Amino acid sequence: MSNASKPKNAFYAQSGGVTAVINASACGVIQAAKESDQIGTVYAGHNGIIGALTEELIDTSQESKETIAALKHTPSGAFGSCRYKLKSLEENKAEYMRLIEVFKAHDIGYFFYNGGGDSADTCLKVSKLSEQMGYPIQAIHVPKTVDNDLPFTDNSPGFGSVAKYVAISTQEAGLDIASMCKTSTKVFIFEVMGRHAGWIAGSAGIASTNEHTPPHIILMPEIAFEETAFLNKVDQCVKDYGFCVIVASEGTQDKDGKFLADAGAKDAFGHTQLGGVAPTLATLVKDKLGYKYHWAVADYLQRAARHIASKTDVDQAYAVGRAAVEKALEGKNAIMPCIQRTSDTPYTWEIGEAPLAEVANVEQKMPRDFISEDGFHITEKAKTYFSPLIQGEDYPPYINGLPQVAKLKKVFAPKKTATNFDVNK
Amino acid sequence: MSNASKPKNAFYAQSGGVTAVINASACGVIQAAKESDQIGTVYAGHNGIIGALTEELIDTSQESKETIAALKHTPSGAFGSCRYKLKSLEENKAEYMRLIEVFKAHDIGYFFYNGGGDSADTCLKVSKLSEQMGYPIQAIHVPKTVDNDLPFTDNSPGFGSVAKYVAISTQEAGLDIASMCKTSTKVFIFEVMGRHAGWIAGSAGIASTNEHTPPHIILMPEIAFEETAFLNKVDQCVKDYGFCVIVASEGTQDKDGKFLADAGAKDAFGHTQLGGVAPTLATLVKDKLGYKYHWAVADYLQRAARHIASKTDVDQAYAVGRAAVEKALEGKNAIMPCIQRTSDTPYTWEIGEAPLAEVANVEQKMPRDFISEDGFHITEKAKTYFSPLIQGEDYPPYINGLPQVAKLKKVFAPKKTATNFDVNK
Repeated sequence: MSNASKPKNAFYAQSGGVTAVINASACGVIQAAKESDQIGTVYAGHNGIIGALTEELIDTSQESKETIAALKHTPSGAFGSCRYKLKSLEENKAEYMRLIEVFKAHDIGYFFYNGGGDSADTCLKVSKLSEQMGYPIQAIHVPKTVDNDLPFTDNSPGFGSVAKYVAISTQEAGLDIASMCKTSTKVFIFEVMGRHAGWIAGSAGIASTNEHTPPHIILMPEIAFEETAFLNKVDQCVKDYGFCVIVASEGTQDKDGKFLADAGAKDAFGHTQLGGVAPTLATLVKDKLGYKYHWAVADYLQRAARHIASKTDVDQAYAVGRAAVEKALEGKNAIMPCIQRTSDTPYTWEIGEAPLAEVANVEQKMPRDFISEDGFHITEKAKTYFSPLIQGEDYPPYINGLPQVAKLKKVFAPKKTATNFDVNK
Repeated sequence: MSNASKPKNAFYAQSGGVTAVINASACGVIQAAKESDQIGTVYAGHNGIIGALTEELIDTSQESKETIAALKHTPSGAFGSCRYKLKSLEENKAEYMRLIEVFKAHDIGYFFYNGGGDSADTCLKVSKLSEQMGYPIQAIHVPKTVDNDLPFTDNSPGFGSVAKYVAISTQEAGLDIASMCKTSTKVFIFEVMGRHAGWIAGSAGIASTNEHTPPHIILMPEIAFEETAFLNKVDQCVKDYGFCVIVASEGTQDKDGKFLADAGAKDAFGHTQLGGVAPTLATLVKDKLGYKYHWAVADYLQRAARHIASKTDVDQAYAVGRAAVEKALEGKNAIMPCIQRTSDTPYTWEIGEAPLAEVANVEQKMPRDFISEDGFHITEKAKTYFSPLIQGEDYPPYINGLPQVAKLKKVFAPKKTATNFDVNK
C-alpha cells in the first residue's frame, strides 16, 4: 500500500456526564471503523479530550473483539470522560493547535466526539480550525446526554435509559407507599436530574396511568414553583388517594429563577448544608402540612443504571456510533447523526443528520404542551413522545449476581510529540 | 362434609416495612393453602393486622389464579401493610380479644403473619391468647425484613434483593465516578437503609473485588464513626485511586450512639433540616477536604426494586410462604419457618423452623468478624455469606417498558361481627 492511500486513523472521545449507554456508541464507532478499510486505528482519548491534549491515546486495536462488544452493556465512560470545555479560539488558540498537532502526529483524519451541546461546539471548532491549519479533519459529533436537550434529534442517547429507570423507580416506590400509607409515610419525594429542563422528571409521568396512580405531582424547571399551589395539591392528593408521590427535577425553581436546592439551610456550624430539592420539599411538607414524609435522591444511580437500560436507547446509542463512522466515510464533516422518529405507534425511527453549526449550544426544553395545564403533570402528547423511548429491556450478562462489564487493557499509543501539554485546571 | 370436618379458614397479613418479595411469600401461602383440602379460604388483612381488627378481610379466593401467580413479581405489600404494634396483653387485652373475635367469626384456624421481629412477637401472643380463650389458632410467622436482623434464619427474605440492588447500584455509580474523576466528582456518598445494623451497607462490599474497586469505604452502625479516621481514609482513597466511593448506613452513629443524620442542620427559618447521612457526610468532606462530591439516598427505591430482585431471594420468600402452610398442616404452632444454609459453594439451603418464643424481639447485628479490622469494609467471611444471596435474576414481565404487577380486586368478606373496632392511632 502506498503512503498516499494509507487509511487515516480516527480519534474518539467521550465528553461530559456519562450515561448508561455512551459505551454502546463507542462500540458502534469502533466496530464500524474496523469493518472499513478506509480507517486505520481508532484511538480513544484517555479521559476524553484531555487525552488528546496530553497525548494519552488508548489504542483500541489492542482490545479483544469480546471486550469491544462488551462495551455495549457497560455503563459509564469506559475510556474516561471529562468536564473540560475548550475555551474560545481567541482565548486559547494554543489548545486547538495542540489538538491538531497531536492528531497530525498520529495521522488522524477523523474526529468522533461523543457528548452534549458543549462538545458539539468543540467538534465544530476542531473541524474549522483544522481546515484553516491545512490539516483538515472530518469532525463528527456523536450525540449523548441524559438531559435530552439536544436539538434536531428525536431524543438524546442516554435519556431513554434514565427515563426507564425513573419511571420504574417511581412505579415501584409508589406501590410501596400505597401499601403502607394507612399508618406510615404519606408523602414521598423523588429527586431526579434535570437542572435546566424537565425531560427526566417528566418521563416519570409514564408510570401514571390514571390520576390516582403515582406520580401525582411532577416538578419541572419549566414551571415556576409556587409554594401554596404545591402544598394545596399535595394535601388534596393525600386526602383523595391516601398518599402523594412527587417527582422533582433538581432544577426546580421559583419565578425568579432561584433553585429550591439553594434554599440555604445551615448546619450547626453555620455552613451551608449541601442541598437537594427533595429534603427542601420534605421540610416544607412537614412544616406546613405535618405529613409523614420520605425522600430519595437518585443522583448518579439514574444515569449509571445499565442494569435496567432501555433497549430502544441501547439500539439508538449504538446506531449513532455506527452512523458517525458511515457518514465520515461518505465524506461528511461537522455534522451530528441524529434520530428521526418516523412513527409513534409502532415506534419507528431512522438516522438523519444535523449540521453542527445549528446544533451547538442550543438547549431544547420541554414544550409547554407536554405539561398539563396546572403545571404538575405531563399531557397525553408527552406520554406519546416518552413511551417508545423506554421500550424493551436489554439486560447485561451477570456473573455471581453482578453485571459483567468490559475490562479494557488501555494500552497507550507511543507518544510522538515532544511537547508536554499542561491541561488548564 | 360434616361441620366437624369442615376445613378451617386462614388469615394472612403483611406487617411493617414492605419488600420487593413479600408478595412472593403471600403467593406461597395462598397457593399452598389452595392445594390442601384442610384449609378453606385464605383471607388477607387489608392493611395488615388492622384489617383483622376492623374486619376488613380480603377474600383471596375471589382473585384469579393468574393474579395470585403475579404476586410473585409484584413489589410492595399487595394487600396493604401497616406499622401497628399491638400493645402488651396487660395494656390492651381488648385488641387481642377483638382479633380472636374476628377470627372466630370467620372460622379462622390458621394465622400467617408475614413480618419482622415485632410481628413474630404478636404472632406468639395470638397463639397463646387464642389457647387461653378456648379458640386455639395455629400461628405461624413468615419471616420478612430487608434489615436481615432476624435470628435463626440464614437471612431474611427481602434482604437479598436489597443487597443485590445496593451492590449493583454501587458498582454502576462507581464506574461512573471512576470515569469522570479526573475533572469532576472525587467523592460519592451513597446512603442506604439499616438503622440498627449494617447488613445492607455491608452487602455493597461484594461489588469490591480489590481495594481500588468501589466501594472504598462502608459505614455501618456497628462501628462508631470517627471523623478524623474517616476523613483520612477518604483523602487517602482520592490520592491512591483518584476517587472515593462511600456506602453509608442511615444508622451510622458516633461512639455515644448519636446518629449522624441527626446532625441538626437548620434551614433559613431555624427549622431542623430533614437529615440524611449522605448530605451530612458530604458537608464534612467539602468543608474539611474540599473535594467535589455527589451523594444519593436510595430510600424506598432499594426495598421496592423488584426489577432487579435476587432470584435466590424470590425463591426463598416463596418457599417460606409455602412452608408456613405445610408446617401448619403438620400441626405446628408458634413457629417460624427459616432458611438454613447447608453449603456456601455451591450455595444450598433448606427450610427449617424456629420457635417464636426465641425469635421474637431478638435483633441480629453484623458479627465483628464480618467487618474489616479498620472498620471501613467487610471481610472475606462476610463476602462468602453475602454473595449467594444476590445470585440469579428474576425479571418481572414487562408491558410497554414497565413492569407488570398484580392488580387485585380486593373483595372483602361480608362482616360477621356487630362491633366497629376503633384502631388506636
